[in-house]
Amino acid sequence: MDDVSRTEEFNNYAVKYSEYYKGKVQIMPKVPVHSLSDFSIWYTPGVAEVSRRISQNKELSFEMTGRWNSIAILTDGTRVLGLGNIGPEAAMPVMEGKSLIFNFLGAVNAVPIPIRTRTKEDFISVAKALEPSFGGYNLEDIESPKCFFILEELQKSLTIPAWHDDQLGTACITLSGLINSLRVTGRKIEDTRVVLLGSGAANIAAAHLLFAAGFKEGNIILADSKGVLNPEREDMDSLMLNNPWKYQLAMRTNAERISGPSEKAFKGADVIISASKPGPDTIKQEWIKTMNSDPIIFALANPTPEIWPSKAREAGASIVATGRGDFPNQINNSLVFPGVFRGVLDARAKGVNFKIMVAASYEIANFVKDPDAEKIVPTMDDWELYPAVAAAVASKTVEMGLARKNNSREGFYRTAHDLIEENRRVYMKLMEERLIKELPGGNKIEN
Amino acid sequence: MDDVSRTEEFNNYAVKYSEYYKGKVQIMPKVPVHSLSDFSIWYTPGVAEVSRRISQNKELSFEMTGRWNSIAILTDGTRVLGLGNIGPEAAMPVMEGKSLIFNFLGAVNAVPIPIRTRTKEDFISVAKALEPSFGGYNLEDIESPKCFFILEELQKSLTIPAWHDDQLGTACITLSGLINSLRVTGRKIEDTRVVLLGSGAANIAAAHLLFAAGFKEGNIILADSKGVLNPEREDMDSLMLNNPWKYQLAMRTNAERISGPSEKAFKGADVIISASKPGPDTIKQEWIKTMNSDPIIFALANPTPEIWPSKAREAGASIVATGRGDFPNQINNSLVFPGVFRGVLDARAKGVNFKIMVAASYEIANFVKDPDAEKIVPTMDDWELYPAVAAAVASKTVEMGLARKNNSREGFYRTAHDLIEENRRVYMKLMEERLIKELPGGNKIEN
Repeated sequence: MDDVSRTEEFNNYAVKYSEYYKGKVQIMPKVPVHSLSDFSIWYTPGVAEVSRRISQNKELSFEMTGRWNSIAILTDGTRVLGLGNIGPEAAMPVMEGKSLIFNFLGAVNAVPIPIRTRTKEDFISVAKALEPSFGGYNLEDIESPKCFFILEELQKSLTIPAWHDDQLGTACITLSGLINSLRVTGRKIEDTRVVLLGSGAANIAAAHLLFAAGFKEGNIILADSKGVLNPEREDMDSLMLNNPWKYQLAMRTNAERISGPSEKAFKGADVIISASKPGPDTIKQEWIKTMNSDPIIFALANPTPEIWPSKAREAGASIVATGRGDFPNQINNSLVFPGVFRGVLDARAKGVNFKIMVAASYEIANFVKDPDAEKIVPTMDDWELYPAVAAAVASKTVEMGLARKNNSREGFYRTAHDLIEENRRVYMKLMEERLIKELPGGNKIEN
Repeated sequence: MDDVSRTEEFNNYAVKYSEYYKGKVQIMPKVPVHSLSDFSIWYTPGVAEVSRRISQNKELSFEMTGRWNSIAILTDGTRVLGLGNIGPEAAMPVMEGKSLIFNFLGAVNAVPIPIRTRTKEDFISVAKALEPSFGGYNLEDIESPKCFFILEELQKSLTIPAWHDDQLGTACITLSGLINSLRVTGRKIEDTRVVLLGSGAANIAAAHLLFAAGFKEGNIILADSKGVLNPEREDMDSLMLNNPWKYQLAMRTNAERISGPSEKAFKGADVIISASKPGPDTIKQEWIKTMNSDPIIFALANPTPEIWPSKAREAGASIVATGRGDFPNQINNSLVFPGVFRGVLDARAKGVNFKIMVAASYEIANFVKDPDAEKIVPTMDDWELYPAVAAAVASKTVEMGLARKNNSREGFYRTAHDLIEENRRVYMKLMEERLIKELPGGNKIEN
């Protein structure tokens, strides 16, 4: 089946099943009720004592309520998948899907909450107001540069971790893939020149993560639709005002002050990380031929990579990664966020930062025992990955003084492993017992 | 066991079990996942088509996502049980308990969301922002008069029902009990004089609901800690400014312009609805003796009624109701909100109002086949009550043009009945299969 008809089939199933199930997640009790008098414990009068204790020490809300394992998936629906600003109602199916993955891979209780806000200030106000109910936030599908303002302010002001998956998740798995790519091609971080093609959410975050991982600022080059970013570009004043994140990176990166169209940056580069407009002709073979030997190409646009992997290899690329599951080396956020959130939640972390992300990236990279050009990252069915990432993240939050709850790395691993395993056992049982309805017309999605 | 030691026992269990279960509700998948490739349907790329359709018609969010069955339980934690302003973190255990009841009795997906807001305007902003994610709001434990501003504004501006249970739920079940009390004592609504003792959330709403049910405005008398409300009371100017709801009721009620301490209102009254300070000596026997023959006393303060039922009867009360389950005639919100929300959700209602509430109150009253002085309201284990209330409410929203989804009363009954029954079946199975952990130290709460 070709790409178009396969996508159409996915679409048709998605519509049909959405109408059938009317939602992908739901609230279920996690305590037994054997008689109505049990509500004297779960509700009034007994519950008052639990509330009284938390009112005396708010941190107890992580031990006596579901807060320890609950996050909100927050979006304003301004940049949903490739659909653009379609609003919060229309963002819900995506957020429900994300909640399902959070549950399935990380045993995280993720409440999908698309919100209707206009300004970044409004979004921030709502997020601050909801903080007492959650142990963390996963931000999703928020337009750029609004998403930078929001993430920065929330990371500064909240006492729970705020994560924007389109920035941090993508950056994190990109770094994992890059770590193994350098291993496979025998490069050192401090000597590697990386071009970030596209300066949206993912690559702005990737730049900062690369700095945190030891890449030299001068060796990083960003480009956007107007060409290579450098301090002398004519739109610097407007960038300073409207997108200070891009502006600051323009000032710090590109030591050689390369300028002009983005292909100029390919010359002598070791790595291209492209999160740009869908291909297949966004990146040209000639450009790759100007790169250093054994060049590394991450062509991450969806649904069509900026250059087909076969074409990139033909032009000399040593390693090629894409965002798709039907080619080797899928750069997939789902390898990151379930474990990261399992980790910050298990440590009751007060925040998350680039150093913690570097630890997560290395854990993911190291999970691939013998990396080669066709295997630089794990795949989603590597079940042991998620508790391993959780343990790495949780330990790092302890090391950095950001954890409310201390444990050994082994202890964190065990906690995460058992939670995920138990959650999966319950889920399998729900399906087996038909407590989750079977798919209409047979119990298999044909794909 | 006496009241104090029994309450202590409830408290101890509540603390112990809260630490053990760490939350009373959780998110669970409601769709099957048999292989990771199923995420091509539940998540990208397939989900994009679902989002696209909703972006073209936002009302589809009620048919293709969980919105149709999801409500938020919102509170700012400013008036939690008898504990006062203990804040959102400490309010969570109560909201989780409410969510559990919503699930257990109404099959409603109720997300507990205590929020940190200072002003009523902030609360309203957050509630408006969250609207796209939910099919309704249950407001809870918000201080008065803030709660009136918030409810009024949300009912005006939202396209989903907003319900403040401390106002509307209590008023609704109070009216049900009153309807049967009048039947038992052979009274007519239009001739009945009702004193509302205490002018907080519950009684302010009760006054409006009584008007909607046909009680004469002049026959209703409100009193607060400063005595009987009437248009000449010296604090009218300050009330007009700070609590316009109380002010307006002072202007509309009490045709005889009774003034002075609240006991003055008892003389010649048929009914006392007291939601005032806990007793047992808030209402005195002498006052009851000044009422009309066969007087009706609702002494609703918790944990101790304003007068013990035995004392009230000794003083001549014909019918006595309290807020407690260990006396006859428990005026209990849990008889109302699960069915009301099941109804507004099944009708995809755009709002709820006093006329709809009157329909709910009559449905609940009529559910008691042969009411007598000891049985004016159903009890929580009358399982058929909830779908009956749902059907009455849903039909009324259709009649009033507030429903997005039309159905016959029988159709609504069937929908509600099946949803609640299926939900209970799943829950029982979860307990039976130990997918919900057993209570530590045996599977029964001893109470």
